[in-house]
Amino acid sequence: MGTQIFHVTFLPFDITVKVPEKTTLWEAAKLGRLPLKTPCGSEGACGECIVQVLEGPYTAKPSASLSKKLVTQGYTLACQTQITADLTVLLPRFKELPIKSVVTSDFFENSRDQISGFFEISPDIKFVKVCLPDPTLEDNYSDLKRLKRELNKKTGMKDIRCSFTALQSLAHSVRAQAGNVEVVCESEPHRLRVLEVYPKNAAKRLWGAACDIGTSTVACSLVDLETGKIQATTSGLNQQIKCGHDIISRINYAQKSGGLKELQSLILKTINNLIEKAASVVELSASEICCAVFAGNTTMIHLLLGLEPRFIREEPYVPTFNELPPFVAKDVGIKIHPEAGIHFAPAVGSYVGGDITAGILCTPLLSSEKVSLFIDAGTNGELVVGNQDWLMTCACSAGPAFEGSGTACGMPARQGAIERIKLDNHDNFLYSVIGDTAPQGICGSGLVDLMSELFIHGFIDRQGKFTNKATDKLVENEDGVAFLVESEQKSFWGKDMLLTEKDIANLIRTKGAVYSACLLLLKNVGLEPKDIDAIYIAGGFGRHLNIENAIRIGLVPDLPRDRFFYLGNSSLTGAYLMLLSHKNRTFVKEIAGKMTYIELNTEPRYMNEYTGSLFLPHTDMELFPSVRQILCSGIRTTCT
Amino acid sequence: MGTQIFHVTFLPFDITVKVPEKTTLWEAAKLGRLPLKTPCGSEGACGECIVQVLEGPYTAKPSASLSKKLVTQGYTLACQTQITADLTVLLPRFKELPIKSVVTSDFFENSRDQISGFFEISPDIKFVKVCLPDPTLEDNYSDLKRLKRELNKKTGMKDIRCSFTALQSLAHSVRAQAGNVEVVCESEPHRLRVLEVYPKNAAKRLWGAACDIGTSTVACSLVDLETGKIQATTSGLNQQIKCGHDIISRINYAQKSGGLKELQSLILKTINNLIEKAASVVELSASEICCAVFAGNTTMIHLLLGLEPRFIREEPYVPTFNELPPFVAKDVGIKIHPEAGIHFAPAVGSYVGGDITAGILCTPLLSSEKVSLFIDAGTNGELVVGNQDWLMTCACSAGPAFEGSGTACGMPARQGAIERIKLDNHDNFLYSVIGDTAPQGICGSGLVDLMSELFIHGFIDRQGKFTNKATDKLVENEDGVAFLVESEQKSFWGKDMLLTEKDIANLIRTKGAVYSACLLLLKNVGLEPKDIDAIYIAGGFGRHLNIENAIRIGLVPDLPRDRFFYLGNSSLTGAYLMLLSHKNRTFVKEIAGKMTYIELNTEPRYMNEYTGSLFLPHTDMELFPSVRQILCSGIRTTCT
Repeated sequence: MGTQIFHVTFLPFDITVKVPEKTTLWEAAKLGRLPLKTPCGSEGACGECIVQVLEGPYTAKPSASLSKKLVTQGYTLACQTQITADLTVLLPRFKELPIKSVVTSDFFENSRDQISGFFEISPDIKFVKVCLPDPTLEDNYSDLKRLKRELNKKTGMKDIRCSFTALQSLAHSVRAQAGNVEVVCESEPHRLRVLEVYPKNAAKRLWGAACDIGTSTVACSLVDLETGKIQATTSGLNQQIKCGHDIISRINYAQKSGGLKELQSLILKTINNLIEKAASVVELSASEICCAVFAGNTTMIHLLLGLEPRFIREEPYVPTFNELPPFVAKDVGIKIHPEAGIHFAPAVGSYVGGDITAGILCTPLLSSEKVSLFIDAGTNGELVVGNQDWLMTCACSAGPAFEGSGTACGMPARQGAIERIKLDNHDNFLYSVIGDTAPQGICGSGLVDLMSELFIHGFIDRQGKFTNKATDKLVENEDGVAFLVESEQKSFWGKDMLLTEKDIANLIRTKGAVYSACLLLLKNVGLEPKDIDAIYIAGGFGRHLNIENAIRIGLVPDLPRDRFFYLGNSSLTGAYLMLLSHKNRTFVKEIAGKMTYIELNTEPRYMNEYTGSLFLPHTDMELFPSVRQILCSGIRTTCT
Repeated sequence: MGTQIFHVTFLPFDITVKVPEKTTLWEAAKLGRLPLKTPCGSEGACGECIVQVLEGPYTAKPSASLSKKLVTQGYTLACQTQITADLTVLLPRFKELPIKSVVTSDFFENSRDQISGFFEISPDIKFVKVCLPDPTLEDNYSDLKRLKRELNKKTGMKDIRCSFTALQSLAHSVRAQAGNVEVVCESEPHRLRVLEVYPKNAAKRLWGAACDIGTSTVACSLVDLETGKIQATTSGLNQQIKCGHDIISRINYAQKSGGLKELQSLILKTINNLIEKAASVVELSASEICCAVFAGNTTMIHLLLGLEPRFIREEPYVPTFNELPPFVAKDVGIKIHPEAGIHFAPAVGSYVGGDITAGILCTPLLSSEKVSLFIDAGTNGELVVGNQDWLMTCACSAGPAFEGSGTACGMPARQGAIERIKLDNHDNFLYSVIGDTAPQGICGSGLVDLMSELFIHGFIDRQGKFTNKATDKLVENEDGVAFLVESEQKSFWGKDMLLTEKDIANLIRTKGAVYSACLLLLKNVGLEPKDIDAIYIAGGFGRHLNIENAIRIGLVPDLPRDRFFYLGNSSLTGAYLMLLSHKNRTFVKEIAGKMTYIELNTEPRYMNEYTGSLFLPHTDMELFPSVRQILCSGIRTTCT
């Protein structure tokens, strides 16, 4: 008998690989191009390739890096596991969170006064109900002409264009209810576009979809366009993640043969799945969605449209487009109504995308004379400063430290991540974990807390080096000395959770990049941090951020705490607002047009500011008076 | 060993059927839904299911209806032939003619003064050559914005829309030749649409395709849009023919489950093949064709677009549309440049389609005060009468007699058809056959000649009955007495070629329908036949028609012979003119708008006119003075 072939399905990507028996799970994952790493060279030493087998028997060599508890739960190291049957395997590092939406129907009720965009519900899509008189031998105009005649009577529009899709069902639709039809129309300037003709009483509603396309996560809201209510929101991993974790690696992947097509099809799959999931919540066919708005960074939108992203990262950083006319769903490959208009939040440039312009739309930045600051600190930090008259923006390579990469204990803000940390009076760590499980790692907001607590309690100095006070808590491993955050007994992976000086340096560089970009933006317009009236923090990172700690490490300016606001997923909210009206879509274009982009890469002053920011909280303590006060108050020993 | 399976490929449809050995060719043809008939019930008696085996051995029972010569050439009766190997088989009744085009480049040179349309070569599509300055860090606008900036400078247009296809290659196109690009633009009113961006020196030209979509035949011309020259013309059978020979049977076929989709895909296949063939003549990729115009009857265009045709044939005969905005090729499924605009000649109603309005565009009907008549006599006869101020049109069910069906010896105007017949002084038939082969049957023009000669030489009387003079030439078979046109020795099929009184009655009904429609149209505006200044005869039937004979049988009005003009495929010519300029497309819409359609089905006077027309040439001999003169001159005995 020949070699047996087994099927291994990897979740949450839902990728199935066929392999001969005795292949290791690690080899199978590589075949499926899944994002598993083995820094130790598949020796079973590092524990990075941990997976959880959900179904099927397997044989695994024992490994020191797995606790017994984990083994009984089906956790195993992919590199040490042989396939002897069909398996279903979960990559726990990519486990999806249950849907958590920031934009809810409440937002709509509560946010009217807090945003720049308009809350008028006036979508371009509307139902027009008309009745076509029965044709006779004397009045036997075509169905299309009779439809146009009635639409013209009702709307006054002369230039009426019928979509190909609507045309195909027209003959039957107009005859089903004796000429009574409900016509889905999209108003363009001076033109009415007929998307679909339903017989009367087809009990259809008008639906729209708003999407935020993030490098890691994609979110989608389904909106009833007649009431403006959000009826469902879904979110999930961007499936492109298996081609690289950040924008640069995705752009590189696109250079491989077939790479761009693959990235495009992965993001389309992600979006279409989320839309379908959202539609199923309200028991809707996705084909009833007649309009969609997408907001995302410039690279993500290029990949979605299958456009060459290479020149985004090559000087002088020129994207194919910043602003696009609406396309139709069938052209883009979005599985909603084939003729639905697809709108994109306009970008400012290669590194300030539609996610940021959409984000600004849902801040009050443009409704005030006072100066505000908008921060979206992910792998790339984007900042916008301005008021109703002017807007200045820049992007800085913050690095992925706050996104969970680049530090040994870092992880994205998912289930199992420590999102808040505090040192109690006995210098023990208190923390809260997303999903209330044993901790798997620390996400961005947790790392900010950790740094701040270590600094304020004197375990690290202003340069991020361990002090004598830290000695008791330090352990030594191959990376040098490291601070013990949580012991192997309590951590999910059964390994010590450690923070090295290298990790700290990484985090300082990240926070320094953001803060110095902020200073430079302000200096460009002759302002100082104290002139900022409000700071809006966007993104998942911002959601859990402890502002006090963010100030203490020098990530954000030291301003009265009531000037800080969390926006949550402002890209999704902005996309939602763009869905509500043409006015908002015009407005977001104005926002993009107003933004002056400062290229930091070629700005010599930026390096100076950056160097000054590589201290806790900053070389210039004048900029952080509240931190100085705490340090002087004796919690810490020295005060300079 | 089990039953062997063989592949039988049927030409010219190129349909391959898999069948078990010993299946008959007739059963295989039925499986492939090929248009083979066996009126005799597969008894090998009628000879209707004749095919020619081009490749492969076979076993056939001998048949009386096949001459030895035919058998040696591979002809066999499908119902009598067993499949014992893979075969390639031709259905000779559907053999395609070599390309014969009426619209040639000469037309362009010679026809300037003879048509209503404009000869200005001013297509909407043009190349705009621009150079994008290299982007810099200071001027790092997106590729799209830089392209629009230069296009705006060059054309003055502000509203510039870039197609999705052009966008996808934009980044590379603008970088291939240091910013030098050749942009394929389509001017819409107040808007420029970018179809494609080629790097400079890509040596591309602008191409357009004009198509006539006939119920039986489809023709396609490939046009160089910069010079207006037709560089290639291809034509072929409408592959829908296997679903029915005429419009009504196609509409019925569309009612079957999957029928409409099948008809749509067959006509798309036909068109795409012809376009590809034409493109290959000039060594072009079809994707370089940036514009196309289609002219066809209302049903054909409905089927092409996958639209329900049912209501075209149900009172009050309402089509889905008469006039359409342009669609793009990828929506319609035409395999040229995906963003190419597809234009349709507008229809007047269910039975006067875009083939007629396009046809009028290439007549001088609209350039004169004098009244002209346009006749397209196919299975459905369409007539237009009018001048520069008014147009009146109607359609009559002429029946398929002139198209080759409905008479025992009839066939379409293809290779093997007798297209002209004359009786010599000894009452022997002289004739010419298309392709100079042995005669297979008689096409429309030949039947007109035959009827006229039989009538003028006294073999049939004014009611279409055989006279005493005919007795010697009559043979008797199961259908009654029949006139022997050609003996079995000389006919291709080895069968007598016969014309029965039933056939004659059929032909009289057909010519009567056309002539009475003509009379009725004229009476509607208070005119008589003699008021017609010119008669334009369109279509393949018209091409070979002997006007003298057409007058003698009363098919067309008895007017001075120099008032008759042959148009050839005026639908294709009209489509070609529509391709040349927006002006012509606007003009053909005006033509359609000007036409008043007279519904004959509900016009009581039509029946009266029709009854009067069921004589040779007509009950009212006053209408045919030249015929009366011949009859009185003694060639015929009686003169009433």
